[in-house]
Amino acid sequence: MAEYFKNVKKIQYEGKDSKNPLAFKYYNPEEKVGDKTMEEHLRFCVSYWHTFTGNGADPFGEPTLVRPWDRFKGMDLAKARVEASFEFYEKLGVPFFVFHDRDMAPEGETLRETNKNLDEIVALVKEYMKTSKAKVIWNTVALFKHPRFVHGAATSPSADVFAYAAAQVKKGLDVAKELNTTGFTMWGGREGYETLLNTDLALELDNLARFLQMTVNYAKEIGFTGHLYLEPKPKEPTKHQYDFDVATTIAFLRKYGLEKHFKFNIEANHATLAGHTFQHELRVARINGMFGSIDANQGDLLLGWDTDEFPTDIYETTLAMYEVLLNGGLGDGVLNFDAKVRRASLDPEDLFHAHIAGMDAFARGLKVAHKLLEDRVFEDFIAHRYRSYKEGIGLDIVTGKADFRSLEAYVLDKKDFELESGRQEYLKSVLNQYILEVE
Amino acid sequence: MAEYFKNVKKIQYEGKDSKNPLAFKYYNPEEKVGDKTMEEHLRFCVSYWHTFTGNGADPFGEPTLVRPWDRFKGMDLAKARVEASFEFYEKLGVPFFVFHDRDMAPEGETLRETNKNLDEIVALVKEYMKTSKAKVIWNTVALFKHPRFVHGAATSPSADVFAYAAAQVKKGLDVAKELNTTGFTMWGGREGYETLLNTDLALELDNLARFLQMTVNYAKEIGFTGHLYLEPKPKEPTKHQYDFDVATTIAFLRKYGLEKHFKFNIEANHATLAGHTFQHELRVARINGMFGSIDANQGDLLLGWDTDEFPTDIYETTLAMYEVLLNGGLGDGVLNFDAKVRRASLDPEDLFHAHIAGMDAFARGLKVAHKLLEDRVFEDFIAHRYRSYKEGIGLDIVTGKADFRSLEAYVLDKKDFELESGRQEYLKSVLNQYILEVE
Amino acid sequence: MAEYFKNVKKIQYEGKDSKNPLAFKYYNPEEKVGDKTMEEHLRFCVSYWHTFTGNGADPFGEPTLVRPWDRFKGMDLAKARVEASFEFYEKLGVPFFVFHDRDMAPEGETLRETNKNLDEIVALVKEYMKTSKAKVIWNTVALFKHPRFVHGAATSPSADVFAYAAAQVKKGLDVAKELNTTGFTMWGGREGYETLLNTDLALELDNLARFLQMTVNYAKEIGFTGHLYLEPKPKEPTKHQYDFDVATTIAFLRKYGLEKHFKFNIEANHATLAGHTFQHELRVARINGMFGSIDANQGDLLLGWDTDEFPTDIYETTLAMYEVLLNGGLGDGVLNFDAKVRRASLDPEDLFHAHIAGMDAFARGLKVAHKLLEDRVFEDFIAHRYRSYKEGIGLDIVTGKADFRSLEAYVLDKKDFELESGRQEYLKSVLNQYILEVE
Amino acid sequence: MAEYFKNVKKIQYEGKDSKNPLAFKYYNPEEKVGDKTMEEHLRFCVSYWHTFTGNGADPFGEPTLVRPWDRFKGMDLAKARVEASFEFYEKLGVPFFVFHDRDMAPEGETLRETNKNLDEIVALVKEYMKTSKAKVIWNTVALFKHPRFVHGAATSPSADVFAYAAAQVKKGLDVAKELNTTGFTMWGGREGYETLLNTDLALELDNLARFLQMTVNYAKEIGFTGHLYLEPKPKEPTKHQYDFDVATTIAFLRKYGLEKHFKFNIEANHATLAGHTFQHELRVARINGMFGSIDANQGDLLLGWDTDEFPTDIYETTLAMYEVLLNGGLGDGVLNFDAKVRRASLDPEDLFHAHIAGMDAFARGLKVAHKLLEDRVFEDFIAHRYRSYKEGIGLDIVTGKADFRSLEAYVLDKKDFELESGRQEYLKSVLNQYILEVE
Repeated sequence: MAEYFKNVKKIQYEGKDSKNPLAFKYYNPEEKVGDKTMEEHLRFCVSYWHTFTGNGADPFGEPTLVRPWDRFKGMDLAKARVEASFEFYEKLGVPFFVFHDRDMAPEGETLRETNKNLDEIVALVKEYMKTSKAKVIWNTVALFKHPRFVHGAATSPSADVFAYAAAQVKKGLDVAKELNTTGFTMWGGREGYETLLNTDLALELDNLARFLQMTVNYAKEIGFTGHLYLEPKPKEPTKHQYDFDVATTIAFLRKYGLEKHFKFNIEANHATLAGHTFQHELRVARINGMFGSIDANQGDLLLGWDTDEFPTDIYETTLAMYEVLLNGGLGDGVLNFDAKVRRASLDPEDLFHAHIAGMDAFARGLKVAHKLLEDRVFEDFIAHRYRSYKEGIGLDIVTGKADFRSLEAYVLDKKDFELESGRQEYLKSVLNQYILEVE
Repeated sequence: MAEYFKNVKKIQYEGKDSKNPLAFKYYNPEEKVGDKTMEEHLRFCVSYWHTFTGNGADPFGEPTLVRPWDRFKGMDLAKARVEASFEFYEKLGVPFFVFHDRDMAPEGETLRETNKNLDEIVALVKEYMKTSKAKVIWNTVALFKHPRFVHGAATSPSADVFAYAAAQVKKGLDVAKELNTTGFTMWGGREGYETLLNTDLALELDNLARFLQMTVNYAKEIGFTGHLYLEPKPKEPTKHQYDFDVATTIAFLRKYGLEKHFKFNIEANHATLAGHTFQHELRVARINGMFGSIDANQGDLLLGWDTDEFPTDIYETTLAMYEVLLNGGLGDGVLNFDAKVRRASLDPEDLFHAHIAGMDAFARGLKVAHKLLEDRVFEDFIAHRYRSYKEGIGLDIVTGKADFRSLEAYVLDKKDFELESGRQEYLKSVLNQYILEVE
Repeated sequence: MAEYFKNVKKIQYEGKDSKNPLAFKYYNPEEKVGDKTMEEHLRFCVSYWHTFTGNGADPFGEPTLVRPWDRFKGMDLAKARVEASFEFYEKLGVPFFVFHDRDMAPEGETLRETNKNLDEIVALVKEYMKTSKAKVIWNTVALFKHPRFVHGAATSPSADVFAYAAAQVKKGLDVAKELNTTGFTMWGGREGYETLLNTDLALELDNLARFLQMTVNYAKEIGFTGHLYLEPKPKEPTKHQYDFDVATTIAFLRKYGLEKHFKFNIEANHATLAGHTFQHELRVARINGMFGSIDANQGDLLLGWDTDEFPTDIYETTLAMYEVLLNGGLGDGVLNFDAKVRRASLDPEDLFHAHIAGMDAFARGLKVAHKLLEDRVFEDFIAHRYRSYKEGIGLDIVTGKADFRSLEAYVLDKKDFELESGRQEYLKSVLNQYILEVE
Repeated sequence: MAEYFKNVKKIQYEGKDSKNPLAFKYYNPEEKVGDKTMEEHLRFCVSYWHTFTGNGADPFGEPTLVRPWDRFKGMDLAKARVEASFEFYEKLGVPFFVFHDRDMAPEGETLRETNKNLDEIVALVKEYMKTSKAKVIWNTVALFKHPRFVHGAATSPSADVFAYAAAQVKKGLDVAKELNTTGFTMWGGREGYETLLNTDLALELDNLARFLQMTVNYAKEIGFTGHLYLEPKPKEPTKHQYDFDVATTIAFLRKYGLEKHFKFNIEANHATLAGHTFQHELRVARINGMFGSIDANQGDLLLGWDTDEFPTDIYETTLAMYEVLLNGGLGDGVLNFDAKVRRASLDPEDLFHAHIAGMDAFARGLKVAHKLLEDRVFEDFIAHRYRSYKEGIGLDIVTGKADFRSLEAYVLDKKDFELESGRQEYLKSVLNQYILEVE
């Protein structure tokens, strides 16, 4: 068996003072945080596309990243990548990975041929999984890359393209079933519009709903019992993308009676592109009972596109894990590094550096979030802040006993309204102290 | 009776070549566009707050705008403003105006006193309306200005504040009923959060729903049959506002079963702050059957706050009127100039200049939109573009006869997928031609 | 000779009522506007890269645009493109085009081979130019596309890369001289940084200055007397680009004493990415005597990346031409359509539609701007607004007679400061009237 | 003497584990970091305006913050504020404060009266300073608040306004001299334009230069030897502000030969509004030898206006202190908290919480930055990265021996260009480790 990452040994936990770049400083898989180990909490996951097919090309530049497996071509390249990927998972010690259909195997002349290529690689993946700890946790389909999807997939003005996309999702679900994943994800990068001047918005949304209903139907038909995840993004590549953010997608699903069938795969960088914090999107999904999984990355808020950077901001990882813990954990979801090394991070070793950076940042975030919840730092503050809804007029409001007449009577001659400080600065100071001092 | 705008006579239509700054060049109220007059189509409306209480203050500067009525104080000022406002409506020839409760009359020591002040001014407004063409089309309540709303109104952590806000809306509905408006609008400028560190998001949203349900109940109880409008805005003054945009608000309403009771008052500048075009927000409301009314203004996309400029961009007014016409007209809605003169537009005459600018821009937009629809420029292009859903596999998709298996069978060996150009550049060129050449 | 655009005949001016998509409605090359023809004023120019090498790929999608010349490969493709390009220029009737070195000819194994390829194509271009009206107005070099420029060209941490870039610019100047262009342009897409954590900012800027000084020296040495243009852009592809905007680049040039040797090639979309209007950037360059040429396109202000759309916004084209006319015309500069058809504009005909859209929009803008200046609409308003600097204390200020003591004496007991309205709404209204009514 | 902050005792350093909200966890003034104490390094400074005159009003809401001194009016209020301020400085232990003229004393009917009011308060400040550790480090003038500055101050179309502004700066310099400050700061909030349609950009910039030259002249005349600081900001309140960012202001100063006379007061939130990181602006000022002082706050990158939040992001405080240490320290500059408590932070104690949050965040940032430099973490990486300029062709480039011909000769047949990874992910990981582990 070839070794693709010869300069890298299995990454070990060496603790916070280690100077070894290829070691974990905070991520200790075995360490207990509350009643689970770090590994159980964090459920790290590698994105096949960024890590094994990403080449560093950007809109103004050619590929910069040359990988050891790039000496192969076609199906041989596809197989070499799988081989390299399992070496990577094992050296890094991550339990999960995810892929698009077209990351794994090249297209043929027809969908039949393409599916055949995919089947061959899926069989190979299955073979590797027999002896590896790493498992496919969910798979997805690339309905945005090929030129046929230039006007959309489920929302294409061409019924033939809709049909093709349908067949591709069908195959995706078959693969999910075959690999026994716990989820199947759909990101509608081309489901949107470039200009309303040429767009039948109502028909496109109806068609998208039809497409999702067929997805639900087919999953049921074949007995695929995993979760169906939708991944919101507001724009890029499309000018306006229909699954703009969590709330927009909920509105859409509820309109068509689909809300029971889908959960969200939430990406940090997509949140900020939509004008929200990552925590906001996680919270909205959570309180709607639709939190599913996480695409863990980070954007650059001074740039207007999806930079998909590895997550290193401790504030973000802490607040994300805070929501995860409030959710009772990730469940079947994962922390999927939908992140790419910068195109100037030229070496294969940078793939390790980048994942280590993200894993350590989330490990620290987990510990901080756990301690914050254990100490009920914000929870107690919030409970106290809203205590007026636990008694008197507040309780009447919450329990439905109050109406406008009773409330008016209550305030009509009232002069004093006591207000309490929101204490934002103090709370941020406490957050800093937890981030810096958690052991 | 005092005359407040002495330098201004009744504004007349003088046609496109007029050099008179105080005349309409495009807005001819009597002119027929299709089967209705311009006045019937456009239903222009003045915002009491910007025009009669706006003073040009900004976060770094004191008031700059001194008005003839500012020589009065307290209730006398309130009355003088009403008097001036009717002079303004008549000289400008606008049929509608809208106001917040606190624009009209000052607060007293208690809500009872405040309501008494308001009643006095409402009676005065009613008196003026007997002899004026101008009518209140909808009213609203200021649940954001007074410090008691610092943490929210319906979403305040204080039940007392919730109660106060409820009583204020109750009074607002009483006023709407009294003035026989066709609508009542709610903008939740403080319904949102500054930081999740101190916020019980789930409770706040539940409370907001309770509040809206009480609003519906009370309107029904008093027999107010006008529309209830919600006005989305993503941020400012609050960091995150719950009614972020149309889609988010639909998701919220559907969750709580409130979607039948509310329509949208859509503001152009709020749309762009949320990352959408104005047309997008109008379209989304329209295809969900929830289009209500319009706050006609424009923002500056290079600035990150609500500039509330008078609408002068012909592209925007054209595409807005395009949606209005597709909607079958404004119905009970209006084109409300929720816009303020720049703080450097110092003269009372600038209030006329600004409204004329906006009215002419919308009059032209109306004519362009009408002609575009009459000629079915985009409609025919779109019908042709999506024709594949009218027959064969496309018809099967739309009528529910297709499923993933039949669609896969259709494409599995198919090699050619014909794609047609979206023709965006050509369509924009045609739009320019219509904008420039419509008569 | 092959015909690549078989469906397109020579584009003619047919006037404002024409329904022919492949005709000009506003651009009439022969028409006089003031003392020059439209063609002389507008100096339209085609960007070789977008129009002949652009393929519609984006960060999430493969190429969508298949061109008639794509049946060739390597140098044959390069030659076919040149042939197609001259057919395009002639059918469209544009007098100028521009190119990057690497648009024209493929790289070889060494720079020597690459230069040889380029020479062959340059010779072919020269041959075509003998019989065509179309001329190269400026050329430029691609110091951003090849992976060797991943960390920058003149600002690379690798001296070898600096040397390579230098040799590439040397050849670019040789080509400019050979083709007798009036300009040579440099866009530093990779001259900037990704993170300050690994960047020696001071050294990089010093090296950039050294590079530009060598450029000046070599141009002088070979007797190239054309303009050297720099093209600012704030970001994308690089996180922070050194030539952020016109002002930043002026600061840089002045620091190193280079300001006499460079002018600006100003792009509309780059202006908005930097937070400025297009007109602002043109104005800043103009009043610093450094206006050079224009990259005429437009961005989407709701998107955060360079969309490079064809310019169709009449406001933008009017205000750009306003600055050009105030500048006394374009001089040796051009209106270069640094714009690409949308990736969904699939047909070769869309290249014509797009250029027609842009040319008509600028033709209208020219006429509006010319009339505005002829009527001194804004000029008189401005002259009146600043009249206080023509006499008294204002004249003392401007002529240097006043100092803080004399000015204090003037105001110390002064009570009234008369302020005049800025009249923004009125002025925008007048602008609309000119845009809609100019003949 | 009145006590205004009765609930607060002198703030003490209690260390990282303290749970006392009114204690420092990281800021220990006496602690040595390198060869200076924390107090000497950090030079904290209170902004009089936010802390003693800020009232929580925003564009949609009335004041929320009621202070103990608000029971006074007019000059009594002014005096009470001074008294309260010194209590605050002493309890907080900050050595410096800064103020605008109009924060300190109300305007009279004429400038003469206004100056008299100011003199009275300045005398009082001077009196307090005799016995307090706290000193005025720089003062500034409010040329943006009064309506007379609606169109600008030094760039007003009214020469009378220019004269008034001049007289105000004259007095500001007199006050600086009187209080023996080491600096005088100018922020041009209204020096810019709302629309180019009514603006003579060239004249306004010339006038701004004249104004600054007079400032330099007068300072010299009266023997004021402190620094003159300019504070860039791109927009808000003005649509386009002339001192857009550091680079733009350098361009302006160099054009008029003023660059030797001014340094920069750099604000974090202004940096991000201009599209830059805080570190970027500090770096650009530093390498141009124009770093002066810091307005330490932070913005919200998801919001488009100046939120002026207290700085709590450890990344930002670390990288800011990194630049400060590279600069050899703050010199006469300070870390001025140009930050306001949120309008929902209602209690006077929140003023302490907020400053403590900022001071602790900067104290930690100082220690991290110091250790990073001590260990030469990034410095060594950078030195190695650019080593090619220390020998061979690179040395020739840097020393001016190379030209385009010699560089071409060097690369013409060269095939291999070795590129090294930029290691961004690894470097960010190291930064995290230092932030979390510094003792």
